[in-house]
Amino acid sequence: MTSNNPDSWLIHSLIVHFGDTDAAGVIHFHNLFRWCHEAWEKSLIKYGLNPKDLFPHYQNNKHLPKIFLPIIHCEADFKSAIYTGDNLNIVLSPKAINEFCFQIETKFIKENNLAAIGLIRHLSIDAKTRQKCLLPETIVRWIESSSINKIHKPV
Amino acid sequence: MTSNNPDSWLIHSLIVHFGDTDAAGVIHFHNLFRWCHEAWEKSLIKYGLNPKDLFPHYQNNKHLPKIFLPIIHCEADFKSAIYTGDNLNIVLSPKAINEFCFQIETKFIKENNLAAIGLIRHLSIDAKTRQKCLLPETIVRWIESSSINKIHKPV
Amino acid sequence: MTSNNPDSWLIHSLIVHFGDTDAAGVIHFHNLFRWCHEAWEKSLIKYGLNPKDLFPHYQNNKHLPKIFLPIIHCEADFKSAIYTGDNLNIVLSPKAINEFCFQIETKFIKENNLAAIGLIRHLSIDAKTRQKCLLPETIVRWIESSSINKIHKPV
Amino acid sequence: MTSNNPDSWLIHSLIVHFGDTDAAGVIHFHNLFRWCHEAWEKSLIKYGLNPKDLFPHYQNNKHLPKIFLPIIHCEADFKSAIYTGDNLNIVLSPKAINEFCFQIETKFIKENNLAAIGLIRHLSIDAKTRQKCLLPETIVRWIESSSINKIHKPV
Repeated sequence: MTSNNPDSWLIHSLIVHFGDTDAAGVIHFHNLFRWCHEAWEKSLIKYGLNPKDLFPHYQNNKHLPKIFLPIIHCEADFKSAIYTGDNLNIVLSPKAINEFCFQIETKFIKENNLAAIGLIRHLSIDAKTRQKCLLPETIVRWIESSSINKIHKPV
Repeated sequence: MTSNNPDSWLIHSLIVHFGDTDAAGVIHFHNLFRWCHEAWEKSLIKYGLNPKDLFPHYQNNKHLPKIFLPIIHCEADFKSAIYTGDNLNIVLSPKAINEFCFQIETKFIKENNLAAIGLIRHLSIDAKTRQKCLLPETIVRWIESSSINKIHKPV
Repeated sequence: MTSNNPDSWLIHSLIVHFGDTDAAGVIHFHNLFRWCHEAWEKSLIKYGLNPKDLFPHYQNNKHLPKIFLPIIHCEADFKSAIYTGDNLNIVLSPKAINEFCFQIETKFIKENNLAAIGLIRHLSIDAKTRQKCLLPETIVRWIESSSINKIHKPV
Repeated sequence: MTSNNPDSWLIHSLIVHFGDTDAAGVIHFHNLFRWCHEAWEKSLIKYGLNPKDLFPHYQNNKHLPKIFLPIIHCEADFKSAIYTGDNLNIVLSPKAINEFCFQIETKFIKENNLAAIGLIRHLSIDAKTRQKCLLPETIVRWIESSSINKIHKPV
């Protein structure tokens, strides 16, 4: 773990890339979910976890995680236009739903205003049986640590 | 308009491409929204509308539509794994929310089971002022025609 | 095999989607490679092959193909702007490089002019050892059939 | 300009995200071009340029750059498999082709080996007439500065 302050692994920043826009001149909507997922991965790494232990990567069919974390639900609200070159602050709020399921709400803040908000909900399943199973220990710890001492920003 | 039967413009099919998957072996979640948007465009074309009249394309800065239809909300539920090569039936259900806003629910059906469902909500704004405005006539007509005589499939 | 005429599996069409554009109002360049790959998959299916036999899909870790076909090189030339709603004709030209390697050149034609051209080169490797191996029989047959009786279009 | 050392704006790093992979367990090929373009944007920003001055963003149809930089050619070679969680070093080598055209070669290095290499070639065109024009001053300066005192890494 790199720090005891959740802000260090739950708050990121992003400068919007040209390739994420469409011909209306603003970000093409579903790229927000890519940003959410990438911010989550960045958070896990900053917290001290190894993505190779969490995500399948089939390197010679070894190193397969025992648990998969498929997405069962996601949603997003778009509040204001996001343009190429915009500086965004990204704030993650993880939450356990039950012992099999957790979600991450991700706020995208532009000049102190909420520009967009995404939410992704994961289920924990056994990689072999594809049946529901307990969340991995490491994810449980990341969620719990994330809610300790967290300075809630009033956005 | 190519037909008086909404099924002809509201029901499509898709064979899942390899590039839409991730290393867990199933579709990477947010590609579903790309499918939703593409199915909507396909529907408008089949109904008889021209995407060049509806979407900005900046061809020499001419042909700009007067109205933009930004997405203000989207969500998806994933019910079962979707693999490369799967045959999906796609069923669109458009609905006006009010005179400024409409949504399209898109069901993805695999072997008679609902594999996933997406929903996209659009707001109508004036391209110049970026203020809320009445939905374009053509979209209103497409939504109304879509709910006439529609044979509801019990999925 | 659905037909003895390679044109039936080597020539497709595409109406450009809004989501493939960027804020310059034209397609964002690398989406062309997605189109190339999808056109190739479509071609294999039309020829009579099953994508589930050719591409890994890890359904319960069964049905893994014995051979992977990773891409070792790709390139594209962009000749003229491609906009949302454009009708494109897609013409595939497969070619064996040697017994381990093949490529597919894909032309994108807009109103009888070459708008863009993509090329993807695949190597055949053993899924277990990850070593170079002979191209799968089915791919060899698809390439050979594709060059028989092909009516070459003067584009 | 943030530094006189081109390495500070030409060398970046990246941890590979899960969403960039496909069902073969490695990165899906064309995502490499997204990485190339994003690394280029990052380089321009680190050098001191504002992406809003270089890329179209149509904010209320104002702030349109006078020059567009469409991609006329791109290519990539893939040398070894790239997995989720891999740490990549990214090294950019910009080069003017002539007064209208420049290219950026981007090397992706994994554990001191070249894993992949991408190349993107841009043409400079007048945003209004869409005719070939001189490269923007800022881009010329970025290319020139990039070749001064550059420590060439022997990869």
